[in-house]
Amino acid sequence: MDEFDLIHSITPRTIHHSSVDVGIGDDAALYTAKHGVQEIVCVDTMVEDVHFKLHYSSPEDIGYKALAVNISDIAAMGGIPKFYLVSLAVPSKWTESEIKAMYEGMNELAKLYHMDLIGGDTVSTADKLVVTVTVIGEIEKGQACLRSLAKPNDIVFVTGEIGSSAAGLSLLLEETNPQNSSVETDYFIHRHKRPEPRVSVGRLCSIFKRAALNDVSDGLASELNEIAEASCVSIEIVESMLPIHSDLPKLHPNWKEWALFGGEDFELTGTVSNEEWEVLKQECAALHLPITKIGYVREKTKSKVILKTDQTSMILEKKGYNHFK
Amino acid sequence: MDEFDLIHSITPRTIHHSSVDVGIGDDAALYTAKHGVQEIVCVDTMVEDVHFKLHYSSPEDIGYKALAVNISDIAAMGGIPKFYLVSLAVPSKWTESEIKAMYEGMNELAKLYHMDLIGGDTVSTADKLVVTVTVIGEIEKGQACLRSLAKPNDIVFVTGEIGSSAAGLSLLLEETNPQNSSVETDYFIHRHKRPEPRVSVGRLCSIFKRAALNDVSDGLASELNEIAEASCVSIEIVESMLPIHSDLPKLHPNWKEWALFGGEDFELTGTVSNEEWEVLKQECAALHLPITKIGYVREKTKSKVILKTDQTSMILEKKGYNHFK
Repeated sequence: MDEFDLIHSITPRTIHHSSVDVGIGDDAALYTAKHGVQEIVCVDTMVEDVHFKLHYSSPEDIGYKALAVNISDIAAMGGIPKFYLVSLAVPSKWTESEIKAMYEGMNELAKLYHMDLIGGDTVSTADKLVVTVTVIGEIEKGQACLRSLAKPNDIVFVTGEIGSSAAGLSLLLEETNPQNSSVETDYFIHRHKRPEPRVSVGRLCSIFKRAALNDVSDGLASELNEIAEASCVSIEIVESMLPIHSDLPKLHPNWKEWALFGGEDFELTGTVSNEEWEVLKQECAALHLPITKIGYVREKTKSKVILKTDQTSMILEKKGYNHFK
Repeated sequence: MDEFDLIHSITPRTIHHSSVDVGIGDDAALYTAKHGVQEIVCVDTMVEDVHFKLHYSSPEDIGYKALAVNISDIAAMGGIPKFYLVSLAVPSKWTESEIKAMYEGMNELAKLYHMDLIGGDTVSTADKLVVTVTVIGEIEKGQACLRSLAKPNDIVFVTGEIGSSAAGLSLLLEETNPQNSSVETDYFIHRHKRPEPRVSVGRLCSIFKRAALNDVSDGLASELNEIAEASCVSIEIVESMLPIHSDLPKLHPNWKEWALFGGEDFELTGTVSNEEWEVLKQECAALHLPITKIGYVREKTKSKVILKTDQTSMILEKKGYNHFK
């Protein structure tokens, strides 16, 4: 593979943002930031056989997801994604057309958000594919949805449904083999391979005076613990209110583990004041964006995140349950 | 290794730039861009056994160089490096203290340039270490030293000396075993492991009305070809004017290959007008920054980069010589 040919073939023909002054083709990219905004920047890496396997993910799937997880981080700040840069360490057995297919997967998603590919690096490796994507976005000054902004009496919510991505992964790894043929396993697999970042919900939250947001990458329990820690509050969620797909319990007795600790749903979870929750709920309904109230923010006590079930309350650690001592 | 512990230990205690609004610790970093500048962004990846080997590079060396090569890209635009983000795919055999040592190597260089670590990602991999660094910098609006800015009659220059990094690599790989014990091999090895990005020279060039710059990552021949192509000019360099270390010819009969095609010197090569060359030369002398005139920009002809020796002229391709047909 010739790197110069590859660069030529992936260089976008059109640029969405006129603020891009120099894109691919020099030592670095140049752009002019808007006045009155803050720049947002994040980076995430996906590794073959750690985050995906080649026998079930196509190059397009890998590219799509590598960009999606970064857009999700921008969404979790309430921001607008603008630019991306791609760094690939590619095993020599990969063909040029497979590499281009990976860029195609990214481009599919980038077009939806009017994002521009402005740079990157492609190097060879002896072993596993490593895909690193950097995304730059922007947010109106002072409007970012930080983890530290939760306050007692806020409503806790989550978008979409949780646990479906973990279910999809379990199906892909053949750890789960549903007996019930009525379960649409493709749905769960799609949720794992092609998560949809919730940029619109992040944007709605950014307009509020104050909203705390996290994207569900490491699992709902982990994300809510991060908000609780950063905001010095406790969070109480109610098991029966958690939004799950109706087929999830049919797949495996451990479905609650998937919902609470599975991760990779790339939904948004967060908190807003009671009054603003009513506004957010209506706006989401108008835009057909699923969002569910799952609990409340409490004053800080010793226990950070609490799960209430019909019978009991448990402390929800980042990675598991803990019964009260 | 616990990722949360690692994040805590690498999070900077002090921030140099007050424009950082949110650093490490949320879904993404936030900063406010200055008015009147353009943002510069670049990313580069280094892979174990492709770009470095663990038997001769310490974790500190690897970290240092991964950041240095990106700062060099900012320098090649004439810019000021400001922030960096680090994405690591780390084999499980690496200890937490080795990973911290890699960050220490980066921090050593970051301190020199008052750069802030504002984000990143650490994931595990089964095999080779992959280090990806994203650097963000800034440049006064319209002052970037683009490859496309060379004009006929410009002076062609290069900073420092070329070929030393390739010599160092050859020594490290034991392809070169100097007979002459007077040669300071450590010097060449240091040049390979710890390149010094030429930010100051880039800054001097950025003040001029017009300067074309590239950093010598892929070799002088490759960098000058890129300037020639982007500017639609020919470039003529003179072999006897190329700055090399006096011990270079003692190391190997192929030393000219190192100087022209070796790469990884991370010097700057570029072109400025005749009048501005006189200014640049004086300013560099005042700051003890080595810089050498090596040739001239010509009108575009069929041949892009030409190397003149005492006897002949040759076309210098990106990766090798071509005799005139």
